Amino acid sequence: METITNSLQRIIPREANGKILKPYQGAFNNLGGGNRAAPPIPVSRPARISKQTKLCKDIREAIEKSGLANGDTISFHHHLRNGDAVVNLVMNEIAAMGFKDLILAPSALFPVHQPLIELIEQGVIRRIEGSMNGPIGKFVSLGGMLPDIPILRSHGGRARAIEDGDLHIDVAFIAAPTADDYGNAYGSLGKSACGPLAYSHIDSIYADQVVVITDNLVAYPCIPHSIPATHVDWVVNIDQIGDADKIVSGTTRITKSPTRLLIAKYAVEIIEKSGLLKPGFSFQTGAGGISLAVTKYLGELMAEKNITASFITGGITKYAVDLLHQGLVGSLFDVQVFDTASIQSLHEDPAHWETPVTYYANYHSKGCLVDRQDIGFLGATEVDIDFNVNVNTHSDGYLLHGIGGHLDVAAGVNLSMILIPSYRKRIPVIRDSVTTVTAPGETIDAIVTEQGISFNPSTEMGRILNENLKNSNLPVMSISELKRKVENITGIPQAPQLSDEIIALIEYRDGTIIDAVRKVIP
Amino acid sequence: METITNSLQRIIPREANGKILKPYQGAFNNLGGGNRAAPPIPVSRPARISKQTKLCKDIREAIEKSGLANGDTISFHHHLRNGDAVVNLVMNEIAAMGFKDLILAPSALFPVHQPLIELIEQGVIRRIEGSMNGPIGKFVSLGGMLPDIPILRSHGGRARAIEDGDLHIDVAFIAAPTADDYGNAYGSLGKSACGPLAYSHIDSIYADQVVVITDNLVAYPCIPHSIPATHVDWVVNIDQIGDADKIVSGTTRITKSPTRLLIAKYAVEIIEKSGLLKPGFSFQTGAGGISLAVTKYLGELMAEKNITASFITGGITKYAVDLLHQGLVGSLFDVQVFDTASIQSLHEDPAHWETPVTYYANYHSKGCLVDRQDIGFLGATEVDIDFNVNVNTHSDGYLLHGIGGHLDVAAGVNLSMILIPSYRKRIPVIRDSVTTVTAPGETIDAIVTEQGISFNPSTEMGRILNENLKNSNLPVMSISELKRKVENITGIPQAPQLSDEIIALIEYRDGTIIDAVRKVIP
Repeated sequence: METITNSLQRIIPREANGKILKPYQGAFNNLGGGNRAAPPIPVSRPARISKQTKLCKDIREAIEKSGLANGDTISFHHHLRNGDAVVNLVMNEIAAMGFKDLILAPSALFPVHQPLIELIEQGVIRRIEGSMNGPIGKFVSLGGMLPDIPILRSHGGRARAIEDGDLHIDVAFIAAPTADDYGNAYGSLGKSACGPLAYSHIDSIYADQVVVITDNLVAYPCIPHSIPATHVDWVVNIDQIGDADKIVSGTTRITKSPTRLLIAKYAVEIIEKSGLLKPGFSFQTGAGGISLAVTKYLGELMAEKNITASFITGGITKYAVDLLHQGLVGSLFDVQVFDTASIQSLHEDPAHWETPVTYYANYHSKGCLVDRQDIGFLGATEVDIDFNVNVNTHSDGYLLHGIGGHLDVAAGVNLSMILIPSYRKRIPVIRDSVTTVTAPGETIDAIVTEQGISFNPSTEMGRILNENLKNSNLPVMSISELKRKVENITGIPQAPQLSDEIIALIEYRDGTIIDAVRKVIP
Repeated sequence: METITNSLQRIIPREANGKILKPYQGAFNNLGGGNRAAPPIPVSRPARISKQTKLCKDIREAIEKSGLANGDTISFHHHLRNGDAVVNLVMNEIAAMGFKDLILAPSALFPVHQPLIELIEQGVIRRIEGSMNGPIGKFVSLGGMLPDIPILRSHGGRARAIEDGDLHIDVAFIAAPTADDYGNAYGSLGKSACGPLAYSHIDSIYADQVVVITDNLVAYPCIPHSIPATHVDWVVNIDQIGDADKIVSGTTRITKSPTRLLIAKYAVEIIEKSGLLKPGFSFQTGAGGISLAVTKYLGELMAEKNITASFITGGITKYAVDLLHQGLVGSLFDVQVFDTASIQSLHEDPAHWETPVTYYANYHSKGCLVDRQDIGFLGATEVDIDFNVNVNTHSDGYLLHGIGGHLDVAAGVNLSMILIPSYRKRIPVIRDSVTTVTAPGETIDAIVTEQGISFNPSTEMGRILNENLKNSNLPVMSISELKRKVENITGIPQAPQLSDEIIALIEYRDGTIIDAVRKVIP
């Protein structure tokens, strides 16, 4: 395989899956140009003329009517997370119908989708372009999808790829907790409620054919809706699109780990002492234990100082909803929710706003939300002394996680902080060089661990924070110092056993390749 | 000028404005195909990188930044109706900057835009593609825009033309009663509140450059919003985008004319006696005096019979809002509002739903709203014995009105009724042949006048109604009988004095030309 080197000195293939690749050249160097994808022009005729209905009797009929062909690209969203039943149902039907060589373009896959491995082995699925959390990622790490090479994209990057025409979807299947027979679809009502349908909105615009699959068919018109009928070709009503208990948590819980609580405390202190805690500030957290603690601590500090935020972006949990309802934040931008309280708030509160992914994070839009955010609190599996961040592979080299909005948020916000325990199972997270670069160091301002805090001397914000906080009571140190301190506890880690063979690509939000993932030698 | 004949035997030019025209061949014969327009790919970078803001100090700066060039096409929406200040402000600035040969593509123009005539004469504006209510229409009727030929489109037809790439917009100017500095724009708040921004939504998606002009700049983020920041390049904050008193009425009033009330009464009786008044039925009315009376009478009948409608589409007025709040209708689809009560309802009630025009009526979508409506109550300036309807020209030949959603609704609904007084100023409305065909007879089921009611024998619904109601107490008669009856009152009307010269085209919703408008000999 012919390889080239990108601006981070990462070695990537010159081409993959029959396409020439563009190497990453910096976070903001690709300035757009060219034209967006141009979907086919459909036609709308009343039923008295067309003698047709969109409603199909089952998934097979919808697949037949969609005109699916061997080699096509099909897509799914992941709002049902590990409770999703739709991907497996559709793929099993597709396999039973004898289709081959399909390219799967989900926003993300979860452990529940492990049965797809068999369909990959049978040649029904030729390639996956999307995040693969867990077993399918592990399967890919061992070379299971070669000679095809999966491509992983961030939330914003996936929207960009679809909108720019890099990722053409032939048929999009949209799991919808509520829908009518014309395809208006909504996520916050129904027994399988999942909140927003934000990941699938872009698929619904650009896919040649769109199939809505619901288990709560309501009388026309379904209002409110997230996906409009004008985007939908076919509708199927089935018994169960998912397992409600696994779609969202009844409650999301803050970590009880003293280490993680200390990291959250440090993060909030940095915000407070740096002068960033100003009226109208904005931030984003996730649903992990540290994130929830940050939301809670920050909320308490805001209440104490009587400072109101303009918005929170998420990954929304009840901790963010509580801040909205206490009047401590003006609005919530919601790409996905993690608990039932957040679904109810999204349905009822006009200030809790469903946010299509292109609005949230598309670099090739006229101005996305992450570019207006002040602070992003993010995670990592590894960071390195150049502040590059890995969220995809573990230190043993296995590709076990998707990107989410990570690198989009890191690039957009004024202050991006990585909040991580300094080691996990005695494996240090700070490396000379990360196994995989997901987010480039130029977009990361701070690394916060329980052992110490490092600010990036290469970013303006990193330099400001270092200047402002170096004499504070916070344990500020250089990243090299922090690395040494952690290694004094854990010892020097072993390098993962990897072959040269490339088994997946990490695409940056601008469509360039930021890194390649190597095959694990087990 | 070389001419051809379409399927309604209307003589139209073979080409206009340098483009070959497609003749109308039937309401549902064009089945799409080809691909949609592909707008340029933009880029979104945070201000710390781009060193830019979207906020311009004045309209001139926004025009400069938009890169406007001579010959470009620019667009506006008409939600501010005759209270709009933005079209004149922008066009005067454009004229002052010395631009020439522009093509204006507003959704509609009103009498307040009369000053544009001077800019047409000066060559600043070369052509208008859009509805022209009043003085500009009259100016066009006298050949004022020749050799260019304006094109009039319906609401759905304009969305289709933009989406299909037939109408490329270089710069869209969007008057926004509320907006933030990133371009999120909303219509239902602010001193110039106008309700939905539904007409401009499609412009915001497809225009190369989008300028939001507001007189109520709010702190970021503007939530809720109708136009997302991802669609907007530039924002301008000015003193006054319009005259609130002329944007909407404080109240809309039902006609007091006994003739018009009788027509409304007949219309409701037809619905009642035909069996169409069933739970879950749907309908659309406008803001004219007869329409308001229909909404009121129908509402009273629904209450009496305890029948609930699924939705009303509009043109929303407080009469429709009252039905929503009385629980007699499940939801309102709102393309524009006509009174302040409707604005408040749109802002506050989740069942009152802002409806982008492509969702409402785009024939080249995957299923638009009008195709799911049961009944449309519509107006006309003339009808003819083939049930063709004219809403554009008066019987003296002057082009004084836009199309609105008229021909979209007529084509979509199961029952389209034209509600008109049989004569106006002693000029009969029923003709051998309408001066201009706006909606083809095949899409019109009934003509209802105070002198009699005619059902179209060429449509299935017309035949059903005729069969069901011919022996009722309603004055059902053939269209020829009705015409004779009216002419017995009015006398035979004079034909308008028209030359052969074509001064405007009426484009059907599928992009074909349904009729040409001739120059008036004054």
